[in-house]
Amino acid sequence: MTAADASPLSDLNRARAEFRDELIEAGHLVPSSIDGLYGRSGEFEDVIELIDTRVRAAGKAAHGSKPQRFRFPPVFPRESFERTDYIASFPNLTGAINTFSGDNKAHAALLAERSEGKDWDHFLEPAGTMLVSAACHPAYSMLVGTLPDDGVMLDVYGYCFRHEPAVDPARMQAFRMHEFVQVGTPDQAEGHRNSWVDRGLEVLADLGLDAAPEIANDPFFGRAGRMLAANQRNENLKTELVVRLYGDLDDGTAVVSCNCHRDHFGHTFGISTADGEEAHSACVGFGMERIALAMFRTHGLDTSKWPANLRV
Amino acid sequence: MTAADASPLSDLNRARAEFRDELIEAGHLVPSSIDGLYGRSGEFEDVIELIDTRVRAAGKAAHGSKPQRFRFPPVFPRESFERTDYIASFPNLTGAINTFSGDNKAHAALLAERSEGKDWDHFLEPAGTMLVSAACHPAYSMLVGTLPDDGVMLDVYGYCFRHEPAVDPARMQAFRMHEFVQVGTPDQAEGHRNSWVDRGLEVLADLGLDAAPEIANDPFFGRAGRMLAANQRNENLKTELVVRLYGDLDDGTAVVSCNCHRDHFGHTFGISTADGEEAHSACVGFGMERIALAMFRTHGLDTSKWPANLRV
Repeated sequence: MTAADASPLSDLNRARAEFRDELIEAGHLVPSSIDGLYGRSGEFEDVIELIDTRVRAAGKAAHGSKPQRFRFPPVFPRESFERTDYIASFPNLTGAINTFSGDNKAHAALLAERSEGKDWDHFLEPAGTMLVSAACHPAYSMLVGTLPDDGVMLDVYGYCFRHEPAVDPARMQAFRMHEFVQVGTPDQAEGHRNSWVDRGLEVLADLGLDAAPEIANDPFFGRAGRMLAANQRNENLKTELVVRLYGDLDDGTAVVSCNCHRDHFGHTFGISTADGEEAHSACVGFGMERIALAMFRTHGLDTSKWPANLRV
Repeated sequence: MTAADASPLSDLNRARAEFRDELIEAGHLVPSSIDGLYGRSGEFEDVIELIDTRVRAAGKAAHGSKPQRFRFPPVFPRESFERTDYIASFPNLTGAINTFSGDNKAHAALLAERSEGKDWDHFLEPAGTMLVSAACHPAYSMLVGTLPDDGVMLDVYGYCFRHEPAVDPARMQAFRMHEFVQVGTPDQAEGHRNSWVDRGLEVLADLGLDAAPEIANDPFFGRAGRMLAANQRNENLKTELVVRLYGDLDDGTAVVSCNCHRDHFGHTFGISTADGEEAHSACVGFGMERIALAMFRTHGLDTSKWPANLRV
């Protein structure tokens, strides 16, 4: 064993690679040529649905029929993306979509360069769309204007994309997030976030997972991002529910995120409360693939041996 | 009324815009700033699930537990995309994903140009991934090698992207496709395609839809594409199940597609039959959003008034 192999980082990366390989070997994930992109087996999807049954039940128990259900596709308008300032905070995670808009002649030139093994991306142009990075992002543009007295609560669930290739199976480039979002007064938003910390822990405990809340920050990019991250922590805007997939090798993996956005979306999308103030928003996001992975890690790779109340 | 308004094309476009506006007014679709991109209401999703229940039942009745279920995310490796030659046949529908891979200095330059209202795409680079254009495309790379005697049957279901902004709500840029794919001998593949023409018609009839089979072709790009399209028709490789959403204003909307790929995927992905030949493949793809739209068109916008066996 070399010194590098013995370092904590190497142990962690080895543990991640082993878990990934076990999941692939068991047939739960299908590898691809890209780190962080996997096909899911039918059984993996059954686990996702089992988790979602619990998430839906928790939402219904807490909020009845108040949450308005919306499902957005994995791409959304660039115009909405531009409003969120995501390119300022997370440029490295961004997915911008390009397409070919040329004529026959340009296409022939593209194919000629491609057949010579050359890059052909310079023949493409922006398609007007971006990949969705958080399930709630496409929702805010539909709330432009003035909210009712008790604000609006949304139930959104969809695929998200973040460009962060990694060996860790818990860091996927494409994954699903189920969110409950409250948009309204500062109190309504903060109350929503706070209430879902305990509620999220209950959902995870019922799934047999040992989770703990942690004050956290988003991975804002670069030097300027370090200050944004520190502010987010100091102001207690983000609480993650964390499960230790790799024992003491790291600080655990966030499987649920409870976030106060302050007036970020209210301001940028022009959403007002009934009394004319800029709306605040907050969300709880269940990371569906990460919760599934935590269940495989906790209960084993063979779902037929899981506790009876968790059989898929 | 002007002469232009009275033309068939204008009548068709008006009918499409009216249907889209009705769907939005009824709350089933949420518009965005981009043609062909919509949020879906919870009720719309319930209709999708109703349809999928019937699709799954038809698959089970026909094939038992033979189909292997896989679910792929909406992005897949560029390496796999390159093998399919999609950029040669459908460049205009392609979605290539770009991201930012630069440092602090490049990011500052990006933000400076952006704040001046300039284009910032030239700061981005290919991310190694592409949007999935047909649900089965990410599946073939996992079949590389030699198949068992009776081939492989896959059940795949996922989001697809095609860059074709349109007023017609039935032409979405992002939509779901549920496919049963047979990979094996030429007879196995062709038999699979043929069997699903009648079976698909039954599924649609059970949903109360009046559908008819039509020999069809893919919308291959450009001058060279016209010959590919003619060949596809002449060789009877594509049968679409068509519902008339707009009466006699057009030839109808394909809601299910039954396709013989010949050895296209077997050849490009290196998939062999048990006797060492290049594998053939065929698929049936249910266009989930289009079937839902056909149901709204046929049974009305108020699902509480749908036939009892179709209540969501």
